[in-house]
Amino acid sequence: MASAPASGEDSLIARYFKPIATDPGAFGLDDDAAVLKAQGADIVVTTDAIVEGVHFLPGDPAESIARKALRVNLSDLAAKGAAPAGFVLSLALHAVDDAWLKPFATALGEDAKSYGCPLLGGDTVSTPGPLTISVTAFGRVPADKMVRRSGAQRGDRVVVTGTIGDAALGLDILKGGAVGAALAGDEAARQALIGRYRVPQPRNALASTIRAHASAAMDVSDGLAGDLTKLCAASGVSAAIHTPGIPLSRQAAALRGSGAVSMETLITGGDDYEILCTVPEADYEAFAQDARKAGVAVTPIGAVIAGNAIPSFLDERGRELALKRRSWSHF
Amino acid sequence: MASAPASGEDSLIARYFKPIATDPGAFGLDDDAAVLKAQGADIVVTTDAIVEGVHFLPGDPAESIARKALRVNLSDLAAKGAAPAGFVLSLALHAVDDAWLKPFATALGEDAKSYGCPLLGGDTVSTPGPLTISVTAFGRVPADKMVRRSGAQRGDRVVVTGTIGDAALGLDILKGGAVGAALAGDEAARQALIGRYRVPQPRNALASTIRAHASAAMDVSDGLAGDLTKLCAASGVSAAIHTPGIPLSRQAAALRGSGAVSMETLITGGDDYEILCTVPEADYEAFAQDARKAGVAVTPIGAVIAGNAIPSFLDERGRELALKRRSWSHF
Repeated sequence: MASAPASGEDSLIARYFKPIATDPGAFGLDDDAAVLKAQGADIVVTTDAIVEGVHFLPGDPAESIARKALRVNLSDLAAKGAAPAGFVLSLALHAVDDAWLKPFATALGEDAKSYGCPLLGGDTVSTPGPLTISVTAFGRVPADKMVRRSGAQRGDRVVVTGTIGDAALGLDILKGGAVGAALAGDEAARQALIGRYRVPQPRNALASTIRAHASAAMDVSDGLAGDLTKLCAASGVSAAIHTPGIPLSRQAAALRGSGAVSMETLITGGDDYEILCTVPEADYEAFAQDARKAGVAVTPIGAVIAGNAIPSFLDERGRELALKRRSWSHF
Repeated sequence: MASAPASGEDSLIARYFKPIATDPGAFGLDDDAAVLKAQGADIVVTTDAIVEGVHFLPGDPAESIARKALRVNLSDLAAKGAAPAGFVLSLALHAVDDAWLKPFATALGEDAKSYGCPLLGGDTVSTPGPLTISVTAFGRVPADKMVRRSGAQRGDRVVVTGTIGDAALGLDILKGGAVGAALAGDEAARQALIGRYRVPQPRNALASTIRAHASAAMDVSDGLAGDLTKLCAASGVSAAIHTPGIPLSRQAAALRGSGAVSMETLITGGDDYEILCTVPEADYEAFAQDARKAGVAVTPIGAVIAGNAIPSFLDERGRELALKRRSWSHF
């Protein structure tokens, strides 16, 4: 990024992003690169892009798009046990639209501050295509302590944070699907679910707890069923999930109870940005206690088992759910 | 990135990008994040995106697109005096096209290897819009030794590497402009200039020399005139450039000599990916000697002067060129 004699790009950066780039390593966005101090730690690097019409809807507010772009990356850092250290932003825009950029940058700056993840730099380019926002975020973990997907062991508990499936319901409402119809008249429920889709709540408060106790972890972005399948594959294990134990929000539970949505919808929809982790039985009490102190709800939903079968999701009578698909894929 | 039970995205990553992600910190792209070891250094972070139809042409070969995406970032690291440490890739694709992805990934892997800049991770998303490739690259410099734009002092020499303006001529040829017509019959010259546009030659061999001797540096990506203006503004100085001393390739010099292109075209066109730096007079001989050892051509083109006037470009008789524009801007 550059400030100075004001091309359109430079003036855009000076107006909107310089005020939120307060970290000394960002050099006020006046240079070609930023400096990140490792402070003796390993730097954890993660990158996630969001595309208009794919990861967010054209009508979504600029504020929520900004928060989602950063938070999907913060969620990865949390699951890896890393403390946020900063991020860079790559923004492909149709045109400079002040009415959009101002709330976008303001919300981004607020999240950067509240999560302790400063804007270090970026690149702004024009595109004839959809708005595309790519964030690369950095975290710090003690040397060799990043929590991997691959450490799950037979006998570990399978745990998720928060509630599962809300974001998929929110997306369905925004797309005019059956969920919205089922909630006609309950605007509060509709808005709660839409909020879960638009603005993830990454569990960064749990990062040090994950690092201390989890044998494996990842964030749930493409659906619990598919993401657990990935974690098990990376660890060379399988898992059995007690599906009725999967934590649901009040809204999701009501929709599930009335038959308006299936469990499959909830566990394969994606966009949850909760943490999925495995915790050795002997560590579980300490883990749960730390999580309570961190103020993050955690729920055990099953166990890691031996074998390389894809994880099974069992209903209240112990019958396996037949899932038609496990997760969302771009291609 | 993720491997494992093979969504389209996962299988794409496993097929094309896993083989080139050989660094241990990439975890074979089987995890949500990568680990970058600072090794006691500062991490220099830079990010640049390239968009089809904006930074490269729809007909450009996949190989050259891959190399350009990485090299525009390597060029920033070089100018900042940093040694490459790795990169992450964010790829927004229309669809999975093996005939395109295979040469893209192969060329990317070759460059990653030859520049010592391993692929650490990435994200692949679908887009209905143009192909967009965002790279965030990392380098290492000794603590607090990143070379800034802001250190130029009155009396320093202004220096550029390589030759200036070739890429702008190459782009003009690809767009069917006057340059191509002027070179009709000289296919070798046409291809040389097109190559300079498509495949930058970042000056990473000069990074430690820059760090040792330059008071300020940046890479020339938006045109020499505009980029020098930015460097001077960041440093609070001005500069006077002896325009006939600006190094030109044989092809550019011939076109300039015949009147087919103006000096303005050459110094405002962009995509050079050469290094522009300022070197204190007392350091200049040592700088030039180190550059010779590194095998990188460096040419002094003028001097840093006091004041906050925009830099002046003087012709062979000392008259100032009137530049209609100084650099390329996205907006």
